[in-house]
Amino acid sequence: MNDSTQEILKKCSNLLQDIKSKNPLIHHITNYVTINDCANVVIAIGGSPVMAMDKNEVEDIVRQADSLVINIGTLQESNIDSMIIAGKKANELKIPVVLDPVGIGATAFRYHTVQKLLTEIKFSVIKGNMSEIKKLYGLKVKTKGVDSDTDQMNGGVIAKNLANQLGTVVAITGKEDCISDGQDLYTILNGETMLTSITGTGCMTTSIIGTFLGLSNESVYAAIAGTMLMGIAGEKAHQLLRENEGSGSYKAKLMDCINLFNKDTYIKEGRLYVEKGSQSV
Amino acid sequence: MNDSTQEILKKCSNLLQDIKSKNPLIHHITNYVTINDCANVVIAIGGSPVMAMDKNEVEDIVRQADSLVINIGTLQESNIDSMIIAGKKANELKIPVVLDPVGIGATAFRYHTVQKLLTEIKFSVIKGNMSEIKKLYGLKVKTKGVDSDTDQMNGGVIAKNLANQLGTVVAITGKEDCISDGQDLYTILNGETMLTSITGTGCMTTSIIGTFLGLSNESVYAAIAGTMLMGIAGEKAHQLLRENEGSGSYKAKLMDCINLFNKDTYIKEGRLYVEKGSQSV
Amino acid sequence: MNDSTQEILKKCSNLLQDIKSKNPLIHHITNYVTINDCANVVIAIGGSPVMAMDKNEVEDIVRQADSLVINIGTLQESNIDSMIIAGKKANELKIPVVLDPVGIGATAFRYHTVQKLLTEIKFSVIKGNMSEIKKLYGLKVKTKGVDSDTDQMNGGVIAKNLANQLGTVVAITGKEDCISDGQDLYTILNGETMLTSITGTGCMTTSIIGTFLGLSNESVYAAIAGTMLMGIAGEKAHQLLRENEGSGSYKAKLMDCINLFNKDTYIKEGRLYVEKGSQSV
Repeated sequence: MNDSTQEILKKCSNLLQDIKSKNPLIHHITNYVTINDCANVVIAIGGSPVMAMDKNEVEDIVRQADSLVINIGTLQESNIDSMIIAGKKANELKIPVVLDPVGIGATAFRYHTVQKLLTEIKFSVIKGNMSEIKKLYGLKVKTKGVDSDTDQMNGGVIAKNLANQLGTVVAITGKEDCISDGQDLYTILNGETMLTSITGTGCMTTSIIGTFLGLSNESVYAAIAGTMLMGIAGEKAHQLLRENEGSGSYKAKLMDCINLFNKDTYIKEGRLYVEKGSQSV
Repeated sequence: MNDSTQEILKKCSNLLQDIKSKNPLIHHITNYVTINDCANVVIAIGGSPVMAMDKNEVEDIVRQADSLVINIGTLQESNIDSMIIAGKKANELKIPVVLDPVGIGATAFRYHTVQKLLTEIKFSVIKGNMSEIKKLYGLKVKTKGVDSDTDQMNGGVIAKNLANQLGTVVAITGKEDCISDGQDLYTILNGETMLTSITGTGCMTTSIIGTFLGLSNESVYAAIAGTMLMGIAGEKAHQLLRENEGSGSYKAKLMDCINLFNKDTYIKEGRLYVEKGSQSV
Repeated sequence: MNDSTQEILKKCSNLLQDIKSKNPLIHHITNYVTINDCANVVIAIGGSPVMAMDKNEVEDIVRQADSLVINIGTLQESNIDSMIIAGKKANELKIPVVLDPVGIGATAFRYHTVQKLLTEIKFSVIKGNMSEIKKLYGLKVKTKGVDSDTDQMNGGVIAKNLANQLGTVVAITGKEDCISDGQDLYTILNGETMLTSITGTGCMTTSIIGTFLGLSNESVYAAIAGTMLMGIAGEKAHQLLRENEGSGSYKAKLMDCINLFNKDTYIKEGRLYVEKGSQSV
């Protein structure tokens, strides 16, 4: 790693300290499968989650929030208006919004809803797995429900181009995570296969990014800090597994490692590769 | 502690034994974030939870129940009628009802819904954090989403006055828990900061109070028994944490301690302070 | 055990290997209490869960799925159409469907909804506890919310007759599990009382059966494999409990044991009793 990566890891570290001291409020309109995990992960790193989806109150909630997380994991027609109302209000008040287009490739309903959200709301970060981001980018994808295909080739190119196209930060999670603001490309090598052995690690990553967004002026660092935190915690949790322990214990240990993540962890454990915009990707 | 506190702890202990032998059925209309934790906590102490919110069946469900828990954590317009139908039927059948006005200070929607619930339903216990109860009491509050402000001053006065005003038992949870039936004031000193490191400990406390209500003729003892159980279990779970364990393991251990809570635990671990109504508070 | 039971255990073992290599996609329309647990359990044995209930997308989702799980645990009017649309499409495409009629005896709303589902959809397996299956069979039952009565007598007769009557496989879970295709009767002796100390073990069993159904041509073996897997994992998790551990740790260990269940586990641990159709039951 060069000086630049060290600087970025230091920045991630400072952002995490900020979260712990300032306790940002993160409004979620999210799915019913992982809603509890997402709330817990926000608290685990020092934020305050609030889950609220009724159209009668989302404006009032988002007004008090430091950022807004929109996750379409169990998309229901009745929540789309709430997403748009909250998102527009967030934009108006300069509160950053992150989108997780869960399973966008699985149905026309999800695809068209995301298109509508993109028309109505300006997102600071869009985070998805390779299948989701490819679909968003207009490529043909093999989607299996809400899970990703495993083709990680060209992740960097897609992240960078889509970020440019949409004027947002794009984060693609997978074996290697690719993050771009349309200019520079950041590749995170942290991670652990066992993160796919439980549901919700993708949603939790988005909620962590949302928490970082609440205090960061630069969305790309929020995306890096959030994505890397999950990758490193995933590695550490795996190291702590003992005999006879599988995905159930892994889930508890993952939350432990997220909760105990401290200011030194990024610098000690972060594996980041940076390609500046001047370089071809 | 004086004789009176010993008697109360003994009463809590007996109530818990009753739950384990009689297995009361606790109907919940609750939020989507902690619904699983609330169900598990009821089973853990010996009750049977049933979560049902469709207006087509809440009357049939509550009719079979020993108590009703109403929690507005992820309030949705479509559930308000169900809350009222179930609450009125419970009142008619003398089935006790407990209310957790989660985040009542966060939005006008929640505030007005709670006002409506208070008009339509007679609650045996209202349990909230300091921000929620202050809001209910008509005081100006600093609310942060669904979490509390930390001002615990005057908790006793507010609990007692609000209990009088609404003709119910009021339980304020926090560093010290204040419980009053409008006459006497009970302060519980048990608790552990780490209970705030996971979502749902407030909701779970309400569900535990609801379970005690199912078998108790005196609501105030149900409120004391339920609130203290969570406080003591929170302490014990903290003592069981090992190296490298954080909020994920704490959650599992908390449920363990709730599940293993036995008839001696109240008497050994309970820290209760009683001020009888004749005394000024 | 005779040759026949050894053969069946071997078949269960092979089905599990198939799941791990082929990763079937399991569409769920399920309840909000245990939706996270059901998703995790499908991943834990090697499948991919997708939870989707909006009527705008259930046809698109089920089309991609290997099986469909319908669970009425927190039945809401708004989801009934989705269940029917998805179920009919699944039937049309020969995708197997499993039904968990949670709490069918608790309310007329649930009972009539199940009757409607039975009219519209052909189920490969119906799984319930004794109260639920008795209610479905038209017997008078003592139901307590969504939990079962404990009368296990005649389970075999009821399973076999109901299976015949509805032309489906019926699985009754309890102290002994009774499974029948209307012809033969299979009794599983595996299990552990502590499985009742947490919510969701019934729902998870149904989701596991659903995952087996995704790759099995013979529904009855999917029902046996799924039910027995939960019973054995429940036993193993109990053996792993240490001092001071209760239902919270048990839940994590149960998921561990489900996740670590391997091709030898059925053969080593399965306790199955088979009565061929020629024998009277």
